[in-house]
Amino acid sequence: MSDSVEFTQKRMAMVCWSSDLDRVWPQLILATTAAASGLEVDLFFTFWGLRVLQKNEKRITGTNWMQKAESMMDRGGADNLKLGKLHFGGMGTSMIKKLAKQYNVSNPSDLMEMAMDLGVKFYACQMTMELYGLNKEDLIDGVEPPVGAASFIEMASNADMSFFI
Amino acid sequence: MSDSVEFTQKRMAMVCWSSDLDRVWPQLILATTAAASGLEVDLFFTFWGLRVLQKNEKRITGTNWMQKAESMMDRGGADNLKLGKLHFGGMGTSMIKKLAKQYNVSNPSDLMEMAMDLGVKFYACQMTMELYGLNKEDLIDGVEPPVGAASFIEMASNADMSFFI
Amino acid sequence: MSDSVEFTQKRMAMVCWSSDLDRVWPQLILATTAAASGLEVDLFFTFWGLRVLQKNEKRITGTNWMQKAESMMDRGGADNLKLGKLHFGGMGTSMIKKLAKQYNVSNPSDLMEMAMDLGVKFYACQMTMELYGLNKEDLIDGVEPPVGAASFIEMASNADMSFFI
Repeated sequence: MSDSVEFTQKRMAMVCWSSDLDRVWPQLILATTAAASGLEVDLFFTFWGLRVLQKNEKRITGTNWMQKAESMMDRGGADNLKLGKLHFGGMGTSMIKKLAKQYNVSNPSDLMEMAMDLGVKFYACQMTMELYGLNKEDLIDGVEPPVGAASFIEMASNADMSFFI
Repeated sequence: MSDSVEFTQKRMAMVCWSSDLDRVWPQLILATTAAASGLEVDLFFTFWGLRVLQKNEKRITGTNWMQKAESMMDRGGADNLKLGKLHFGGMGTSMIKKLAKQYNVSNPSDLMEMAMDLGVKFYACQMTMELYGLNKEDLIDGVEPPVGAASFIEMASNADMSFFI
Repeated sequence: MSDSVEFTQKRMAMVCWSSDLDRVWPQLILATTAAASGLEVDLFFTFWGLRVLQKNEKRITGTNWMQKAESMMDRGGADNLKLGKLHFGGMGTSMIKKLAKQYNVSNPSDLMEMAMDLGVKFYACQMTMELYGLNKEDLIDGVEPPVGAASFIEMASNADMSFFI
């Protein structure tokens, strides 16, 4: 009788719910670090979080006036995120970004590129796409086709750790 | 030598910490989706989150003046929740609710009913009940008897995924 | 052929991301409860959360002006935390603290001491230490040497439950 050696790659699943810089940063740092450590990583961008996948140059998105108004109030694009706390009309956010640069912490856009290079999967929430009136063309390149919550539940139930950030 | 086939139902445990509409929504969507996918789901409502289990028509709750003041500032009931971000004196919250209706996203009250029908367990945090001065009569029907944090820890330590939302 | 009986202690890993009282409280209650229930608990204090490990009496920290300004706006120390919601210039925070005292809920400082006594490990995020310009001397006693995100990922991937709070 032979022993079977079992090797399973560890997995991480994360709900990326926020478009606040102070949440997106740890999301992406955890994701890239996990991927660099050899884990499979699935990110599910939903609710405010979907804005992070929006192209930086897209200003007004959506098809009806409510979607357009919402897109103006919560500007999308990883380069345009604001702190959820101590934003202070931009001063706090700009200060933290300067500090990060000084101490060699990569910005969200660079972390996203790094994450994709490391094989991290980016999923957009189908329901939020509809709510916001976003199309595939509004999102950055490299994002997987949109999926529903059931797909995320399956990813998370097979993961070794799961987060909602 | 016979192989034993082991089938274990997957489990999800969640701390429902918030009374913000933008957090309660994903909590309940994840909970109903997981239950519909065949998982056992335990929800532990604590801190601000306990307000979500409060009956919609209860305006002022608690027995001492501090509890009454707190209950006025953070109105409970799943129909009365506000966005934690972009609320804008009600305009943002009302707009998101209209968008949700238009795109057939169920409201929190309906999701809670659906969740209970699917067997999701709703637990109120005993300590928060005492802090807020809430009684069983203040909460909606179908909620389990209150439990402490130790009970939640046991649920979560046996779950396949756990979230704090 | 003998069966080996395997007993593994359950583990919990948590990202302590916030310096808001309403988040730090459940972090520490979950941590102490889990440790008291026999779990091994690892806490990783990062971003705003690092401020919680700062000594109460340290007012201005950091070496450059941006770090000093940031430390003034987000005062550290477990005794100085404010609610992230309903703070109302201090009134809401003070009321919740009074209610907690009345109902025998320990304050964050006491919970941290209790947690350390129960063997909970407190890790400071190396990167945030650098961003804030904090030194070991700025932090309370009993904190482990700073670690990076990769160390946390390893802790969490071996844990039975993981949270981001």
